[in-house]
This record gives sequence, C-alpha cells and structure tokens, in this order.
Amino acid sequence: MNKSYTKADRTRNFIIESTAVIFNKKGYAGTSLSDLTKATGLTKGSIYGNFENKEEVAVAVFDYNCSRVANLTSQEVNRAITCYDKLMAYVRVYQTIIKETMNRGGCPVLNTATESDDTNGLLKKRAANVVLNWEGDLTAIIKKGVLKGEFKTNTDPRKTALSIIALIEGGIMISKVTGDVTAMKHILSTAESLINQIKR
Amino acid sequence: MNKSYTKADRTRNFIIESTAVIFNKKGYAGTSLSDLTKATGLTKGSIYGNFENKEEVAVAVFDYNCSRVANLTSQEVNRAITCYDKLMAYVRVYQTIIKETMNRGGCPVLNTATESDDTNGLLKKRAANVVLNWEGDLTAIIKKGVLKGEFKTNTDPRKTALSIIALIEGGIMISKVTGDVTAMKHILSTAESLINQIKR
Repeated sequence: MNKSYTKADRTRNFIIESTAVIFNKKGYAGTSLSDLTKATGLTKGSIYGNFENKEEVAVAVFDYNCSRVANLTSQEVNRAITCYDKLMAYVRVYQTIIKETMNRGGCPVLNTATESDDTNGLLKKRAANVVLNWEGDLTAIIKKGVLKGEFKTNTDPRKTALSIIALIEGGIMISKVTGDVTAMKHILSTAESLINQIKR
Repeated sequence: MNKSYTKADRTRNFIIESTAVIFNKKGYAGTSLSDLTKATGLTKGSIYGNFENKEEVAVAVFDYNCSRVANLTSQEVNRAITCYDKLMAYVRVYQTIIKETMNRGGCPVLNTATESDDTNGLLKKRAANVVLNWEGDLTAIIKKGVLKGEFKTNTDPRKTALSIIALIEGGIMISKVTGDVTAMKHILSTAESLINQIKR
C-alpha cells in the first residue's frame, strides 16, 4: 500500500465525513468555504489540496450520504428471502431511519435533486442516477416476484416501483418540513398497502 | 386609491413576477442580487427600495409561485360537485401542469421545503403552512365524503390525504430530475387508485 496515498485518502474521507451533514442541510449553493474550514478545522489550502473545488467535495459528499442509506437498506433487503419481504424491507427501513434522516438534513437524493435540477449538471446527473437505480432495483424485485408467483401477473412493476419511491421521498419532505414524524408513518403504511395489493 | 402606493405595488409585483422562476430554479441561497437586477432590469437600489432584503423578495416570490398552482387547482376543484370528483381534481390537475411545473423549476413547495428546512426559518414556516393547509383541505373533503356516504366509513382521512400529497411531490421530484414526464403519470394513477379504493 502506498503510504502517502493512504494519508491523502484519509484526509479526503475526513473532509467528506465532516462536511456530510452541512452539505445536506445547507445545500451546494448554501455551503460556503468557511463552512468547510470550520467543520474540518483545516485550511482552505488543505481542502483544495485534496479536492479540485467545492463541487468535487459536494459530489463526494453526495455519494457518501447516499451510500450510508444504501448500506442500511441493503442490510435489511439482503436478510429478506422472498421478493415480497425484500420489497417490504425497502419500505420498512425508512420507519427505522426517518428520525436520523431528519436530523441529518433529510434525504440527500431529494435535497440534491431539487437543488441541482436546474443549476448543477453534475449533481443532477448523480441524483438522477440514484433514482433510476433505485427504480431499477425495485422493478427487478417486482418482476422476479411475478415470475416466482409471489405477485399478481397483472402487476405493473414500474408503476409500483415509482409509487413506492414517490411515497418515501414525498413523505420525508412532509415529515421534515412540518417536523411531524407521524406523517411518514402514515405514508409508509400506504406503501406497504401497495405491496400487499400486488401480492397473490 | 393612493396613486403612489399603486405604483410601488406595481413595481413590487413586477419584481416578484420577473424573479419567480429564477428563485424557484436557483433556490434562495443560489439566487444572487445580480440575478435579481438582471431579471428585472432594475438597480439594486430600486429592488431594495421595494423590499427590505433578499429574504423578503424570496418570501413574496414563494407566495406568488404557490398561488399560481393554487389558483389552477381551485378552478378544477370548485368545478367538481362531489367529494370524489373534488379529490380527483386535486390529483388530475398535476397531469395538466406537470410539464409547466418542470419548466418553471419544479414545485415551489418541494423546492422551498427541502432548501429551507435547516436554513431559513421564515421560508420553512411558509412551506410547512402550505403543506399543512393542503393536508387540511384534502382531509376535510375526505371527511365530508365519508359523512355523505361517498367514501367508506373505515377510511383514514389523514393517511389518504398525506399519501396523495407525498405521491404528487415525490412524483414531481422523480420526473424533474430524470426528465421523464411518464414517471409522474404512473405515480398520479396510483393516487387515483387510492381515491377509488376509498370510494363506496
């Protein structure tokens, strides 16, 4: 292992982890260089010695914030055996993480999508890819479930997948802005009903 | 009518209308004073002669952007006679306005909620109020529909109202960031199914 690479890598990770919540709360445009130096205790030179510019930090932070949620989700999904249980796991994980998600500034995908969709091509593409991959994962589980006879043959996989994602993302927005976590619980129970409705 | 008030009022409205799309696209933090002078053709002095600061413009623009959507919605809802048709109108209006909403920078409530929920108390409160009023309007229609025998007695009005809002807001985010209007169509058809499911 190259020692100097490892040190640079550690500094990059330290910067990413230290600024992850700030970027998610304040947004790309709202996060200043002084926010980054304050959160990390590093100088401007040290930060820009490790990243090309603020956008590169923002992109790395976005990937990090998404991977935190993805890791929690995949733990639950991989534990499930049936397609039905896997789909339910995708929904139920948000019952567990909604409070932490609210404390950490909300859903990084929702925040980044709404902020960057008209302003930052790189972040927008990143957020769009997360949404499309999420849709792809859910659609694949539903299609497999139909083939295995777990779900009804007249199920529309894409419609179901998109509706589950919309409920989760819309639910996070509502709970976050109103400060009311029960809203998300109601909305997630509708997502569970959607899954129960396609069950054979 | 006070003539000088009318002129000031006209200038304020001109500033609001000229900057409505910019604020919705770039966000509160991302919109600069030079964006405002460029969009209006007015000087900094002229803008800040009519508004206390950027936040006051942003709040007025948020109200204006929301009222545009609310006016379109209430036209459709008021035309409907039954509670079922009124609830459907709240959903179906988004089939009509999704493209324009995407072109104008997305849903102002979603954009403002996700940007301001950790950063700007005034805008956050404004966005939260719109969500709570929307929830209140839908809940009232559903409750009335239950009383009138249009909807099933075991309907959960709040859960249904929140789920419809989450689907619409999540749907706008997905369609906007992926640039795919068909996603919204699928998601709105799930909202219509929710309404059909509570129908007696």
